Amino acid sequence: MQISPPYLMFLGDVPDRLAAKTAYGVVDWRREWCLGQMRLPGCAADLGLPDLGIAEAAGQGARTLVIGIVNAGGVLNEAWIPTILEALASGMDVASGLHIRLGSDPRIAAAAAAHGRQLFDVRQPQQSFATGKGTKRSGLRLLTVGTDCSVGKKYTALALEREMRERGLDAEFKATGQTGVLISGRGVAIDAVVADFISGAVEWISPDAPAGQWHLVEGQGSLFHPSFSGVTLGLLHGAQPDAFVVCHEPTRTTMRGVQTPLPTVRQVIDLTVACGRLTNPAIRPVGIAVNTQALSEEDARDVLDRTADEHGLPASDPIRFGVGPIVDRLEAEFPRG
Amino acid sequence: MQISPPYLMFLGDVPDRLAAKTAYGVVDWRREWCLGQMRLPGCAADLGLPDLGIAEAAGQGARTLVIGIVNAGGVLNEAWIPTILEALASGMDVASGLHIRLGSDPRIAAAAAAHGRQLFDVRQPQQSFATGKGTKRSGLRLLTVGTDCSVGKKYTALALEREMRERGLDAEFKATGQTGVLISGRGVAIDAVVADFISGAVEWISPDAPAGQWHLVEGQGSLFHPSFSGVTLGLLHGAQPDAFVVCHEPTRTTMRGVQTPLPTVRQVIDLTVACGRLTNPAIRPVGIAVNTQALSEEDARDVLDRTADEHGLPASDPIRFGVGPIVDRLEAEFPRG
Repeated sequence: MQISPPYLMFLGDVPDRLAAKTAYGVVDWRREWCLGQMRLPGCAADLGLPDLGIAEAAGQGARTLVIGIVNAGGVLNEAWIPTILEALASGMDVASGLHIRLGSDPRIAAAAAAHGRQLFDVRQPQQSFATGKGTKRSGLRLLTVGTDCSVGKKYTALALEREMRERGLDAEFKATGQTGVLISGRGVAIDAVVADFISGAVEWISPDAPAGQWHLVEGQGSLFHPSFSGVTLGLLHGAQPDAFVVCHEPTRTTMRGVQTPLPTVRQVIDLTVACGRLTNPAIRPVGIAVNTQALSEEDARDVLDRTADEHGLPASDPIRFGVGPIVDRLEAEFPRG
Repeated sequence: MQISPPYLMFLGDVPDRLAAKTAYGVVDWRREWCLGQMRLPGCAADLGLPDLGIAEAAGQGARTLVIGIVNAGGVLNEAWIPTILEALASGMDVASGLHIRLGSDPRIAAAAAAHGRQLFDVRQPQQSFATGKGTKRSGLRLLTVGTDCSVGKKYTALALEREMRERGLDAEFKATGQTGVLISGRGVAIDAVVADFISGAVEWISPDAPAGQWHLVEGQGSLFHPSFSGVTLGLLHGAQPDAFVVCHEPTRTTMRGVQTPLPTVRQVIDLTVACGRLTNPAIRPVGIAVNTQALSEEDARDVLDRTADEHGLPASDPIRFGVGPIVDRLEAEFPRG
């Protein structure tokens, strides 16, 4: 599976910015892939891209219409169908992060077949995977892990990719969630894989790599989240990371969506090392990414200093202060060959 | 979902006993549900049940034809189709542990619809689950965990159910694998659930229970198995066990199907407690079930004595010596109200 850029970002009639967060994620990290946006009457989001119709976008070379919408139930809105059909007729593929399969609508399935176009349902892996083997693979891997869901694991992995590439390192983001798949054009939403194949899917996402190449594997969930811990452990064992970065939001007290208290960064480091050793005995932490959005700059710097001191690791807010200190540590721990 | 006994056990033309191991498991634990067996020419297995045809079995009240066969690829053999169609026409449901869905054969789907019968694909959960909540539920739970796959976790849970019931305790086996589902008539093969819903499915399998009732939850995989650890952790968090029993095979050196060395019983106890605390802070081990099949009786007793001493826990081989000492400990740790 390879979703082809350039993209036309379809926002439909989303009622607010949050409902378009997948689309914003793509634009944040792959602005150069995004030719424009297409909005229907009533749309309350704006990606800051040129507004284009299907014909215009196709004329400018758009290859894929990306439905970057999150809605209740993940359903296909009837109002979107004409746009999707027009895109297929104009020679574009369609990629969606909705729960429902694009092809479950017979009109869309027929149009894709008639025009020889591909439908990408990034939440629904279609390939089958082998079970994980746990065998050591070549290359280097870094996994972002978290004290909770939605604490910046994808953002941190992408920020590391950008910073490492700027330093001339060979680094590649490996997507494990739907937005990440749209950002990188490939990958697998591993929370949608059948449970027996979680680590096997991750071994497929991050196969043998050239010596010195880093795979920056997008983390999911938390070993301490009672809903998603299974995904997180399978991902850890499948990724067999040499290094990991802990992502944390210091103002949260309970885990997202449940009543379970948030673990400490220390607990996450210790359990990640204890479990991760199974497939990589040399696993080690190289930094802490703290989301300080809720803090003043002074408080943020204070939290980062204390976090760094307490764990003997560089701590930074990737959005506010960048990931430079974490990449410094990574370069020190894993000198270039 | 409730698979209705009595069962007619269908063995088809299996080439050996191993290919019928699902059927043997059902007969071992639910002999009273099994009216008879049906074998085709060439069948090399024998469950020790009366050989019955469909008409005979239906006449004796059989409610479900159980396809207790494991075959390469999990496919439907063409030679079995007439028997399946005849069973449906005779008013029986059909339950299968094969990978392929019974209804994927249009003849079977049509016959089930025409006769108003149910098809149970125990490997393919059809209901949808909520994500796990991690909230404390009423009743008591014991989970069997393992140093590896296939070390007797299902057998141990069923042996505990039998022993506890003989002592007048309120105990119920909760199936999490295909054979277990056929043995108990309900449950979910959790390795076939979508990854996001592992712990949620277990919360559904073992809901709130009356005070004093024990759910004996069938374990899967191992926290130390690089293929299936995600399933195991989701199961641990979903089951929120008060007590657990470690199952072990002392002559194995590497984990089943991979090159990873076997963990020690101590490692399994420690990691199970470290992780299990998330949803049950009082989690504790109550025994060790050792599969001593490969050892002489003298060596077996020696291994059990040493294992018990080393961990301060009762150790027994459930098949050879029963689970009495483990239930003694359970009763001491959790006195009846």
